Amino acid sequence: MRTFNTFIPNNRTLMGPGPSDVSPQVLNALARPTLGHLDPQFIELMDETKALLQYVFKTENQLTMPISAPGSAGMEACIVNLVEPGEKVIVCQNGVFGGRMKENVERAGAEAIVVTAQWGEPNSLESIEAALHAHPDAKFVGFVHAETSTGVRNDAQAICALAKQHDCMTIVDAVTSLAGIELRVDDWQIDAIYSGSQKCLSCVPGLSPVSFSDKALHKIQHRKTPVQSWFLDLNLIVGYWGQGGKRAYHHTAPVNSLYALHESLRLVHEEGLENSWHRHAAMHELLKTGLTELGLELLVAPESRLPQLNTVVIPDGVDDALVRNRLLNEFNLEIGAGLGALAGKVWRIGLMGHAATTKNIDFCLSSLRTVLR
Amino acid sequence: MRTFNTFIPNNRTLMGPGPSDVSPQVLNALARPTLGHLDPQFIELMDETKALLQYVFKTENQLTMPISAPGSAGMEACIVNLVEPGEKVIVCQNGVFGGRMKENVERAGAEAIVVTAQWGEPNSLESIEAALHAHPDAKFVGFVHAETSTGVRNDAQAICALAKQHDCMTIVDAVTSLAGIELRVDDWQIDAIYSGSQKCLSCVPGLSPVSFSDKALHKIQHRKTPVQSWFLDLNLIVGYWGQGGKRAYHHTAPVNSLYALHESLRLVHEEGLENSWHRHAAMHELLKTGLTELGLELLVAPESRLPQLNTVVIPDGVDDALVRNRLLNEFNLEIGAGLGALAGKVWRIGLMGHAATTKNIDFCLSSLRTVLR
Repeated sequence: MRTFNTFIPNNRTLMGPGPSDVSPQVLNALARPTLGHLDPQFIELMDETKALLQYVFKTENQLTMPISAPGSAGMEACIVNLVEPGEKVIVCQNGVFGGRMKENVERAGAEAIVVTAQWGEPNSLESIEAALHAHPDAKFVGFVHAETSTGVRNDAQAICALAKQHDCMTIVDAVTSLAGIELRVDDWQIDAIYSGSQKCLSCVPGLSPVSFSDKALHKIQHRKTPVQSWFLDLNLIVGYWGQGGKRAYHHTAPVNSLYALHESLRLVHEEGLENSWHRHAAMHELLKTGLTELGLELLVAPESRLPQLNTVVIPDGVDDALVRNRLLNEFNLEIGAGLGALAGKVWRIGLMGHAATTKNIDFCLSSLRTVLR
Repeated sequence: MRTFNTFIPNNRTLMGPGPSDVSPQVLNALARPTLGHLDPQFIELMDETKALLQYVFKTENQLTMPISAPGSAGMEACIVNLVEPGEKVIVCQNGVFGGRMKENVERAGAEAIVVTAQWGEPNSLESIEAALHAHPDAKFVGFVHAETSTGVRNDAQAICALAKQHDCMTIVDAVTSLAGIELRVDDWQIDAIYSGSQKCLSCVPGLSPVSFSDKALHKIQHRKTPVQSWFLDLNLIVGYWGQGGKRAYHHTAPVNSLYALHESLRLVHEEGLENSWHRHAAMHELLKTGLTELGLELLVAPESRLPQLNTVVIPDGVDDALVRNRLLNEFNLEIGAGLGALAGKVWRIGLMGHAATTKNIDFCLSSLRTVLR
């Protein structure tokens, strides 16, 4: 009979596109005894988690909570709740995740008007404006704030302002941006936003924080058609995550993962959100300087670079997989491969959350130096 | 400024409808350092997890894996992948979860033919056969093996045999049955089955093991319409969870929760699946004897009782909420309230996985004795 042993993972340093390194405090929180999902003590944790999510999203949106599944499900939750069959959504695509948004829009029975940009560049306001003019009946603009596949920051504030001028609601992918760069849900008038637990929050993967404006909530509550997903139907989920003392069972919440999310948010709150933004920026400068010294170049122009996700051009003649494998096997260091159109062309070095430290940068640079020698 | 403290949950004994008590070994596994979701070491864990799931499901189905979300998402995954718009599904409903299955079928654009039974009773084969005769174009029969809302076991083997006679595929809810009572996916010719991590596997909540027969997989791969959910589309997920060395990114797997699932499955394997079934049955007998001594009655007739979920009739004049609150606050003991039509009429005492021990039963009975005195 086959035997199975307890799984003991290596202690990697995670500097890829996520998951990022999880702090021991968060892992400790994760392992605390499980409570029932309707336990009054757990409800208190839910309330605090909502308050902390409002803090990191910079919003007072009542409908702010984590979806009980990874970021991809957060994306799907935003789209299937807000968008109805036949509606038009302008989708900005400049990497893998804009493409995923288009897929989700179409599977919701809606029409995606795709505005593209080169991989490695942001979506231009001009192209989005042209699409808005060409499609005055569009109801939404969706875009990725921080494109994890390319390392590009889209100008969320400007895109949202433009969308508002055309009376469109906005759907924003903040999976990699939340807590890593400036993001202001209320000030920028974002209507629906989703993120992931495993990026700049440095929590374990598996949860997707979301937030919806009152206008978005009103649309969700007055749909003509039911939400196609039962599991993601916010009209049902609010009975569990909504306000008030009484919580109705919808699905069994991932209790222990929520302990971890609460702790990771608490740590961001303790550091201060703006301090976290500044730390990511400062660590990026340090990494960039070191990479330059190694003769390595970043793919993205300075004004659109994400500090937390650095796409490094693989020099001619260097074996992509060999370098990543040596880093993993000799140094227990994970950096990311290129994705989609950038496969084989870039490495993705993440500086996210708990992993964005001088110690990790020194380690990453010296390991790279050895392997590239 | 508001302060937030690390969350320290009470150490409850969980004897409700799930989550069940999680063993320290599983909590330890959960808290191990996070690996990347494409790390070769993590891929090994995925392969072992698949093998262990095949073991507990008693199947050789290649498409056997955990969905990265709770049992409700596993239900939705089965339905939105298998069932196409306009198709007919016979749904057996004798509690909350059959009703949820009907909801999912309808949201997938299909037609649910509902066969009902009284809450507390199993679905009769006669009523299912009548529906099969009345709807010869039905393509699926869906039912709940272990109805968590009522404590009733449906005769999965007989229902599947009947469905096969009528050339229907079967969709089985095994959220509460897996590892708690006899369940044989291959022998019983089940086509699609989903479970939950937090019941008789005694893992943390948040994952949904699923398995699909080759016939079901063939249907999924030859759909006329795309699966409406991107996140749950098995045609995409198999690129990550499928066979072979190369794994393509679909979504970021909930890495740490999968450590825990692996460990909980390993513990079932170590005990032996049949031994686990027998332990649940023996613990149920012990609990039943003790409840009888306290003058309490079970709702469900002996031949349909679930050992792992005991619905206890609340005696006249006893304050439901007061009893449960006292158990929680004075004894740190969680038992479940009634759900839906049984709210206020029953308590639900779970004996699931790691929680199904003589120690817990003694504790539960003596606590109940004190509170009911």
